[in-house]
Amino acid sequence: MNKRVFNFSAGPAVLPVKVLEEAQRDLLALPGTGVSPLEISHRSKWFGDVLNEAIANVRKLLNVPEGYSVLFLQGGSRLQFSMAPINLLRGSGKTADYIVTGSWSQKAVPEAKREGTVNIAFDGKPENYCRLPGEGELQLTSNAAYLYYASNETIQGVQFQGEPGDGSAPLVCDASSDILSRPLDMQKYGILYACAQKNMGPAGATLVIIRDELMNAAPENLHAMLDYRVHAKGNSLANTTPVFAVYICMLVTRWLLDDVGGLENMRARNEEKAAMLYDVLDAHPELYIGHAAKECRSRMNVTFRLPDDETTQQFLAGAAERDLSGLKGHRSVGGIRASIYNAMPTEGVVALRDFMLEFAKRG
Amino acid sequence: MNKRVFNFSAGPAVLPVKVLEEAQRDLLALPGTGVSPLEISHRSKWFGDVLNEAIANVRKLLNVPEGYSVLFLQGGSRLQFSMAPINLLRGSGKTADYIVTGSWSQKAVPEAKREGTVNIAFDGKPENYCRLPGEGELQLTSNAAYLYYASNETIQGVQFQGEPGDGSAPLVCDASSDILSRPLDMQKYGILYACAQKNMGPAGATLVIIRDELMNAAPENLHAMLDYRVHAKGNSLANTTPVFAVYICMLVTRWLLDDVGGLENMRARNEEKAAMLYDVLDAHPELYIGHAAKECRSRMNVTFRLPDDETTQQFLAGAAERDLSGLKGHRSVGGIRASIYNAMPTEGVVALRDFMLEFAKRG
Repeated sequence: MNKRVFNFSAGPAVLPVKVLEEAQRDLLALPGTGVSPLEISHRSKWFGDVLNEAIANVRKLLNVPEGYSVLFLQGGSRLQFSMAPINLLRGSGKTADYIVTGSWSQKAVPEAKREGTVNIAFDGKPENYCRLPGEGELQLTSNAAYLYYASNETIQGVQFQGEPGDGSAPLVCDASSDILSRPLDMQKYGILYACAQKNMGPAGATLVIIRDELMNAAPENLHAMLDYRVHAKGNSLANTTPVFAVYICMLVTRWLLDDVGGLENMRARNEEKAAMLYDVLDAHPELYIGHAAKECRSRMNVTFRLPDDETTQQFLAGAAERDLSGLKGHRSVGGIRASIYNAMPTEGVVALRDFMLEFAKRG
Repeated sequence: MNKRVFNFSAGPAVLPVKVLEEAQRDLLALPGTGVSPLEISHRSKWFGDVLNEAIANVRKLLNVPEGYSVLFLQGGSRLQFSMAPINLLRGSGKTADYIVTGSWSQKAVPEAKREGTVNIAFDGKPENYCRLPGEGELQLTSNAAYLYYASNETIQGVQFQGEPGDGSAPLVCDASSDILSRPLDMQKYGILYACAQKNMGPAGATLVIIRDELMNAAPENLHAMLDYRVHAKGNSLANTTPVFAVYICMLVTRWLLDDVGGLENMRARNEEKAAMLYDVLDAHPELYIGHAAKECRSRMNVTFRLPDDETTQQFLAGAAERDLSGLKGHRSVGGIRASIYNAMPTEGVVALRDFMLEFAKRG
């Protein structure tokens, strides 16, 4: 077998080795079917069981209440930037409130504007997206169609630790980079969506959890594939589901339940991992210049700069020698980004921490 | 290893064993990267090479001329039902001509109607979709935005052997179930699209080949993910590409070039396979009642009924005993459907033919 490294990539991202091993074992033929999971019909009993287990696992992990649909779609978060306002804002006569705390929430705004009035409830751009809105800082619209935010900004490394807003409007949340990393109070959400490739599976599947009441109030005559009702009515089989990607998501959710023991455990593990790296930033603030304000730091993406490009290159080269990969910051912001999603083992974070401490001591 | 069967499923469908074996070998870690193809960044050099090879292979196999973009998207054919008219019909003031020869082309019509005027140039429904339009039978609009058709109807098993129409309007073709099964004259096409899961890869990737001139004439201010220009400008990386699905498509196109020797060879092999089964239908017309008119028969999906339900059940049970799976017809039409895509080996078709002959001799 080829050697595995510690993959700190922001997404697509590391998956549990146990999941990869199971997928590898059956890749030529699933037991009892004689067919590869890459070949098997989305209408087969095998895949029906896989899909239903994936949905049941998500419901159990996030304690999703009755009255919500759990869907596995295609198109990534970027298509959700459009589908959410097409379904919830178009023709409503209402305003949608958007909290802009980084590159991803910022990219959602122009798509929403195609469908109605958008109010920017907070704009973090003037402060280079280093922090989240503080108490009382949100400019909310009364009777808004919804309040939009990204729970974690992958590129800037800022993360909400609780839901924003005053509870009057349903939340529409892009949870692409922290889905299933901790428990949530789903009652507050109108739509929670996440592409799979950061914390749940490979690229190509998108999880959407939607309150049925909102879904059913969408305008009529939407394009079928952009209408949540069509997907909900078909139990995510209205078109051919990305079978293999959903299969991997199912294995990951099974791992979260059976091996990790649920999202409280996952949160504790994630906080422990993040603290290891932030402690190094706090101990060496001249070398490791954190991007996010301390109280807004992400448990998923630890973002920092080094003093200059040369030091950054030395850091990346040293990390690569130690099989620590994917640490280069997003091309739009530079610096370093360590993505430490659910599946990043503690030993990977320990190895990175140890390297960072060693690098800080260099002559 | 678990035993493999001959999988005659209509899609997701059989893949070349060589492709599955290569994917299995590297599933834990790709050589030189230390990362699984399920985990690797869509911005990595490895995936850049994979994507570019997949595109180059498609260009070579189909002899795609300059002035066309080759895209790998998400959302399946069903999203293309909408994207094609959103980009090519919306606001054009023109009419789109639709040839309806089966379940899939029929499903594309209501999506197009949301964007403009649709003329049904041929409707095969009154004859239960058993045949294609004959010479002079198409009711074409002058100066149409495009002429739409499905080159192969998976459910009914009818297939065009040449392009329909008079050449005045660009063709928009859903080639989901016969893409890469034979050479095409790409100059005739405005858009050729295909979901991967029948003849090219796993579910979750969609190939779109589009004439740039048409693409660039689309209306402004489209939702980003529904705008072909956005995907073309980003070389299919405008959002996170379904990395693993595209990787498999690349391996399949490499197999078509290196092992099969191109699409002329593939066509010959497909015609030989189809003839083996149709010869049995023609020899036993009272037992195997073909759905498609002879001159319209598909080389990809061989559809027939048996005289009654009991005989059908006996046939399916006997086939299953011989490890011939996925033969049940689509739930909307019943009967039997043998899908014999590119990756179905000749020995699989021989096994099915031999069983059909044996079944015809039973007491």
